[in-house]
Amino acid sequence: MSVKIKIDSFLYERIIEDISKRISNGILKAGDKLPSVRKLSNDFSVSVSTVIQSYVLLEGLGLIEAKPQSGYYVRYNPGRKLPEPQTLNVQTAIKNYGSDELVSNLCEIANIPNLVSLGAGIPSTSHLPVEKLGSILRKLSNVESGGLKYEFPPGYRKLREEIAKRLVEIGINHSVDEIIITNGATEALTISLQAIAKPGDTIITECPTYHGVLQIIQNLGMNILEVPTHPKDGVDVEALKKILRNYKVAASVLYPTISNPLGSIMPEENKKEAYNLFASKNIPIIEGDVYGELYFGAKRPRPIKSLDDKGLVLYSSSFSKTIAPGYRIGWVSPGKYYEKVKKMKLMNSLATATLPQMVIAEYLKDGGYERTLRNLRKKYASNISLISGLVSDSFPEGTKISRPEGGFYLWVELPKQVNSIKLQRVALKENISIAPGPLFSTKDCYMNFIRLSCGCSWSLVIEKVIKRLGELCKEQM
Amino acid sequence: MSVKIKIDSFLYERIIEDISKRISNGILKAGDKLPSVRKLSNDFSVSVSTVIQSYVLLEGLGLIEAKPQSGYYVRYNPGRKLPEPQTLNVQTAIKNYGSDELVSNLCEIANIPNLVSLGAGIPSTSHLPVEKLGSILRKLSNVESGGLKYEFPPGYRKLREEIAKRLVEIGINHSVDEIIITNGATEALTISLQAIAKPGDTIITECPTYHGVLQIIQNLGMNILEVPTHPKDGVDVEALKKILRNYKVAASVLYPTISNPLGSIMPEENKKEAYNLFASKNIPIIEGDVYGELYFGAKRPRPIKSLDDKGLVLYSSSFSKTIAPGYRIGWVSPGKYYEKVKKMKLMNSLATATLPQMVIAEYLKDGGYERTLRNLRKKYASNISLISGLVSDSFPEGTKISRPEGGFYLWVELPKQVNSIKLQRVALKENISIAPGPLFSTKDCYMNFIRLSCGCSWSLVIEKVIKRLGELCKEQM
Repeated sequence: MSVKIKIDSFLYERIIEDISKRISNGILKAGDKLPSVRKLSNDFSVSVSTVIQSYVLLEGLGLIEAKPQSGYYVRYNPGRKLPEPQTLNVQTAIKNYGSDELVSNLCEIANIPNLVSLGAGIPSTSHLPVEKLGSILRKLSNVESGGLKYEFPPGYRKLREEIAKRLVEIGINHSVDEIIITNGATEALTISLQAIAKPGDTIITECPTYHGVLQIIQNLGMNILEVPTHPKDGVDVEALKKILRNYKVAASVLYPTISNPLGSIMPEENKKEAYNLFASKNIPIIEGDVYGELYFGAKRPRPIKSLDDKGLVLYSSSFSKTIAPGYRIGWVSPGKYYEKVKKMKLMNSLATATLPQMVIAEYLKDGGYERTLRNLRKKYASNISLISGLVSDSFPEGTKISRPEGGFYLWVELPKQVNSIKLQRVALKENISIAPGPLFSTKDCYMNFIRLSCGCSWSLVIEKVIKRLGELCKEQM
Repeated sequence: MSVKIKIDSFLYERIIEDISKRISNGILKAGDKLPSVRKLSNDFSVSVSTVIQSYVLLEGLGLIEAKPQSGYYVRYNPGRKLPEPQTLNVQTAIKNYGSDELVSNLCEIANIPNLVSLGAGIPSTSHLPVEKLGSILRKLSNVESGGLKYEFPPGYRKLREEIAKRLVEIGINHSVDEIIITNGATEALTISLQAIAKPGDTIITECPTYHGVLQIIQNLGMNILEVPTHPKDGVDVEALKKILRNYKVAASVLYPTISNPLGSIMPEENKKEAYNLFASKNIPIIEGDVYGELYFGAKRPRPIKSLDDKGLVLYSSSFSKTIAPGYRIGWVSPGKYYEKVKKMKLMNSLATATLPQMVIAEYLKDGGYERTLRNLRKKYASNISLISGLVSDSFPEGTKISRPEGGFYLWVELPKQVNSIKLQRVALKENISIAPGPLFSTKDCYMNFIRLSCGCSWSLVIEKVIKRLGELCKEQM
């Protein structure tokens, strides 16, 4: 019985993937009728009922809709008709980050009940393995003193073992003793920077990049130097070359695999070139890979760390976007800076909470993480596709939109007249949150950009809200 | 039935307290015979069997021993015959902390299995409410998405409410919105310092003080200025006056109620004087109160924060020594620096793990925290008393020992010839850990001092180990 279900669910997956791909490639467009059930049944050599059930699931994902007595139709255009946002080629210079207030706001807003949150990067718990984690917790709560003891750095060994096993699969051959558990990727970044740079040093970041990066660097008294980053290919390697010729740089903070907010992935050859550039000058790379598991392509992109034969890469990630945001479990593999980073961890927070480490270790071991990841990728790809379509339908003429290759963010360039900070303010009055563009850069640019977080569970409310955001944009024109 | 048990246990407590007090006051000395069962039964108006059961419990605590056909005798002298350690009146100057390696060692050593740990400050889980926490966990694991969501700063509201309620009882009238939850008291200290001082600033600390304080200040690029601190009365207020006349100070980090390693409590008038000194110069006080609930006296000592009408005190504590070290839940009430500290928390680790916050909130609400605290105070007082007695019996001539007024540390001054770092090394070879004196100061002093952590569960092993430490000291003479 269980075997049959497994086979069936595998067949669903093939059909769902095939149809999703045809939609996102533009082969099937909004309003197009889907192939007949009988045809797909023949094409895939499955029963008619399997096809029907696949269509029901695709409808549940919001990608298609049934029309009575007519069949299934594609619901949305995945935003293909809109061009991609610009890469801003602003002049490179060390600048201050001035949007601290905006960031605090973003987090405070996230606590408001009944908010439709397209602002902060929060995955809906409905996508997460709530029940499995609950059953692991119950098991652990019966173990004497479960989770009560300190786990001093480098952290809970069984968790480090599970992480090391996963790293092998993406080309990082690691001993379990090279990994340090942290309070999420945020602490990993803080302590990595503290270990390799000092106040007054200059740090390279992507532009645009995650606001936390800019805040943390500035807060540590270091200087921010931004390198233009393309919505598709990530860091502009030519620009990077120029910067490294002209500036003395202490370290870099990069998100080469699915950046935030762009969703870009650096092609493998660019990753290699960037690594060689830094390595030739012995400059450490703090590589964040928080969204790396959430790729939409056929294969897990390899991190820069997999190329690192000099121990220059401090590679970090977390389980905040894929298992449990509230558990605050991240980690860093700091290469040759291991001892220094471990010391910083001790000083920063002494130890990471034991219980969440134990639960995640157990979950990674045999909780079905791969299945959860496959499910998340599908959900986020579908959300991105749906919301792109809605944006292209309802936002003003001149809007541009990113085509993320993973993760759950859309980077939207609005017409020049639209002020995103004002948009945030008026939207919030209607219980809608968005992240305004200036959050993601030191420079006073991206004023007409917004990031939309698509980690939500899909519902008709989202549809309404995106339409409303379109109207609010138009009101500013 | 349950009422009867409650009354009985209350009667036991009275007898146990009375006898413990007589021993620690020196009214009953090692070898003295205890009052007869019949006499105590009359004195306390309780049944003979209640007295016998109290004696059995006192024997279990290791304070007394039964001699066949003779009765009960006091087992140890609580170290009264040894004098108190010196307050070192070294010349005040800004100095570097050089014992980072020693601290890393201390934490790494703590992970060794089968270690008899008198080094790191780790309370034995056998004193902690393991079962109750387990049952709360089981309950929470059944709640949909329990603990999975981010709790952005200031942290889980229900936990802040419970903390605020407790603060009222020690003279701090607080709104729940003045408290920020942190990853233990360590993060509270880190972000408090970051909020109120910058690299190059000078920070006053106690001397000796908790090594984490010295490491964190130095790591943030700030200067350490130590004020002599007395094993009984804490910070030397006269010395403080002089320092404040001669130095420009940005902030102070004090543990006025049960310091680590001394166990000293500043008398209330000294607390007042110190507060006024700082307040007259508008210098913020970071007041740590991690051991405040573990007082041995009749009344909970009030923190300096209770005197603070200017919002100058950043008051912090944690549940790491009283509920669950591994949960990493601390908090800070930063007075007028609230907004800045909250921002630092966001940057340092984004959020504190949600699940441990929920468990502790629930436990504080009706888990029996007061009872656990009473039990802990008794256990630690008894451990301190026993280990003091053993030290006075087995350590070389010239040893001095502190009389802590709470907590679970003993501060031991060894004869000048004994090198505590060497002692740590040779003891570790026999699976015994201690904390050498130089950990607790920037200055190259306290070389012949050690801190013994008495948070262990009592067993005959401890007796052997203290005797062995005495022998190892003598070998150096």
